[in-house]
Amino acid sequence: MNQQESGLSFERVVFFSDAVFAIVITLLVLEIKPPHLEELSNTNLNYALLGLLPKFIGFVISFMITGLMWIEHHRIFRYIRDYDAGLLWRNLVLLLCVSFVPFPTALFSEYYWSRTAFILYTASFGAAGLAKLWVWLYASGKGNLVGADVDKVIVKRISRRSLAVPLACGLAILFSLISLRLAPLGFALIPLIARLLDPTGRKAKRPALGISH
Amino acid sequence: MNQQESGLSFERVVFFSDAVFAIVITLLVLEIKPPHLEELSNTNLNYALLGLLPKFIGFVISFMITGLMWIEHHRIFRYIRDYDAGLLWRNLVLLLCVSFVPFPTALFSEYYWSRTAFILYTASFGAAGLAKLWVWLYASGKGNLVGADVDKVIVKRISRRSLAVPLACGLAILFSLISLRLAPLGFALIPLIARLLDPTGRKAKRPALGISH
Amino acid sequence: MNQQESGLSFERVVFFSDAVFAIVITLLVLEIKPPHLEELSNTNLNYALLGLLPKFIGFVISFMITGLMWIEHHRIFRYIRDYDAGLLWRNLVLLLCVSFVPFPTALFSEYYWSRTAFILYTASFGAAGLAKLWVWLYASGKGNLVGADVDKVIVKRISRRSLAVPLACGLAILFSLISLRLAPLGFALIPLIARLLDPTGRKAKRPALGISH
Amino acid sequence: MNQQESGLSFERVVFFSDAVFAIVITLLVLEIKPPHLEELSNTNLNYALLGLLPKFIGFVISFMITGLMWIEHHRIFRYIRDYDAGLLWRNLVLLLCVSFVPFPTALFSEYYWSRTAFILYTASFGAAGLAKLWVWLYASGKGNLVGADVDKVIVKRISRRSLAVPLACGLAILFSLISLRLAPLGFALIPLIARLLDPTGRKAKRPALGISH
Repeated sequence: MNQQESGLSFERVVFFSDAVFAIVITLLVLEIKPPHLEELSNTNLNYALLGLLPKFIGFVISFMITGLMWIEHHRIFRYIRDYDAGLLWRNLVLLLCVSFVPFPTALFSEYYWSRTAFILYTASFGAAGLAKLWVWLYASGKGNLVGADVDKVIVKRISRRSLAVPLACGLAILFSLISLRLAPLGFALIPLIARLLDPTGRKAKRPALGISH
Repeated sequence: MNQQESGLSFERVVFFSDAVFAIVITLLVLEIKPPHLEELSNTNLNYALLGLLPKFIGFVISFMITGLMWIEHHRIFRYIRDYDAGLLWRNLVLLLCVSFVPFPTALFSEYYWSRTAFILYTASFGAAGLAKLWVWLYASGKGNLVGADVDKVIVKRISRRSLAVPLACGLAILFSLISLRLAPLGFALIPLIARLLDPTGRKAKRPALGISH
Repeated sequence: MNQQESGLSFERVVFFSDAVFAIVITLLVLEIKPPHLEELSNTNLNYALLGLLPKFIGFVISFMITGLMWIEHHRIFRYIRDYDAGLLWRNLVLLLCVSFVPFPTALFSEYYWSRTAFILYTASFGAAGLAKLWVWLYASGKGNLVGADVDKVIVKRISRRSLAVPLACGLAILFSLISLRLAPLGFALIPLIARLLDPTGRKAKRPALGISH
Repeated sequence: MNQQESGLSFERVVFFSDAVFAIVITLLVLEIKPPHLEELSNTNLNYALLGLLPKFIGFVISFMITGLMWIEHHRIFRYIRDYDAGLLWRNLVLLLCVSFVPFPTALFSEYYWSRTAFILYTASFGAAGLAKLWVWLYASGKGNLVGADVDKVIVKRISRRSLAVPLACGLAILFSLISLRLAPLGFALIPLIARLLDPTGRKAKRPALGISH
């Protein structure tokens, strides 16, 4: 990077990403609107709130997954020391996927019986996972933006583990084509897939990698 | 923490939390929509605005409580020097509670006569208070993330005082089961409960702890 | 301030305030919704957009005033070196006023012929101005939070000039009681009032104070 | 700049701008609402989602252009070392243009057949481009806010290249007056215009300038 630049630059990239994650995660609740009761009574309100249950569940799931994606972003950017045009654009595509999340969340919360809604929802997280992998492969590979002091083993393990979420999303979509009830199984396989992709994970107990679990 | 990481990491956790608090606190006003008048006149607008009074009050109360929660978050993170996976996840659960606040605020502003709405509103703040306590107990206990130079007395006092808000919320919910009019009494007891939990508070006058009062 | 605290603390206060300002200023445009045409044609869209003109004007005015308030906040916090509970709470009240701005903006953009809407709009900015003055008087007075190296003359001049906006808002409200057409005159007097309150302003040309003009 | 100020000040300007960009870019998705089906079926949902295609496209285009504007803002602020009142106001005008983007995006996504909607959409980005040029010309010229160590050649090249987007927007608007189908050609000319304005760009391969491509 050019020496003429101020040190603020790289921080801005991280900061901007953080802000997008924070806004997305906070906008999710806006999809849940207070119910409109035809007849005002506490009992009616209770029933109306029960009817919102799929939205509450959708909110919590999307919040936690987006939070996990932030933690993953956080994790890879701890090792990245510099940036260039390639990283900025790849990161922007990742943020595009993240900022899209409120739409499939709203859609799936409303049409939770719909295969299309499920596939769009799952594909959004899968795409964000792939974009994250793209950022990391670029930064640790061609872009050469990872600190020279970072252990090559850590780099490889992050790459392999980053495949877990996209793979699980792909499986969930495949399962949903057979039966929508089978589909969540795909997500349940995430820990197993992560273990298969990174068999040394548990044993090594490196604190730097232990962060997501 | 691994020495290979940049110093940016911990700041990001704090920053991300701040952003979520700031967005929640600013979204609260969006629940108040300009009234739609059937007949346009200044008098009608005045009446319509008076009808929005519960929403204005709900906005101010939720704003101040969320602001207080931010100050409390601020307070505990002044003593936390490091983070790990456990802190990230607990903090994420705290942010989940915080980001949920706009929904019960909107609900309670509209159905202020409803016990259910009151309980959901109060429980949200109580849950956020418990999550904060959870973060603090982990950071100061098992996680061992608090600076070694931090006075053990301060650590204990923060833990005890953090119980005040969840306890008051619990009391307010209990009171509301008897009568909704009695319920705000629970909140009025916050200073008393805080005093009981931390009897040396006033006398000691430690600036670091004096921040929330 | 306690030496045990990390240096991150004060930055967080400033950061949190910045985020609230940024969110408010960006939410303003959400009040302008694309028109719904009964008959689709470019001519109809043109007329519908012309009908949105008061909303566009309201957006630009509120954006610039909120931006000015941010610059003013920025200006006083350049001299503040530390914080305590008193500052946090006063700053929170200032942010409450700022975060309220989207509501009167939406109201006044829709009911621009209404005295009530005008008064609420003007009073919001006046209240924010007073809250800012409150923050500054506390920080530079009792709170003793301003750097010891800051010129006392600058402190006094900021205090006096901070009165300009609340005074102008008060005048505009008074004028509006006579005639709504007269009311904007109050704002036109801001530069004059600022000059009267701080007669040495122009001549001195201190860069630090020149920031808002 | 006055020596009495804390170093936090300039960071705040950059931070505030970043936050506005991040919020705008994340709000864009809120314009896409889940469709309301009259008859609930997966097939109906598929058709309804297809009908949202112009909104999805509008979302992605506006996201990428706003992201590009952020990268450009990022780029010029890497060379700016200081700020004054002139920069703050010009930057605020730039942010005004940026924060307006969600409205023309929503309008154009809904009325994509309308010349007016296209012109407003294009003019918004053109205005933001001009405002960015205004910020840069001031900072690198009269304001004298660019680091003394920054190469004059870089300064000039940024100025010239900053004309590319406003010029392309102007061309696209001109083309749209002839035919709306011709209009996107204006944008397709951006790389060509950028090359004409900065013929040495590719060859020089200065990393600092290479960032946007």
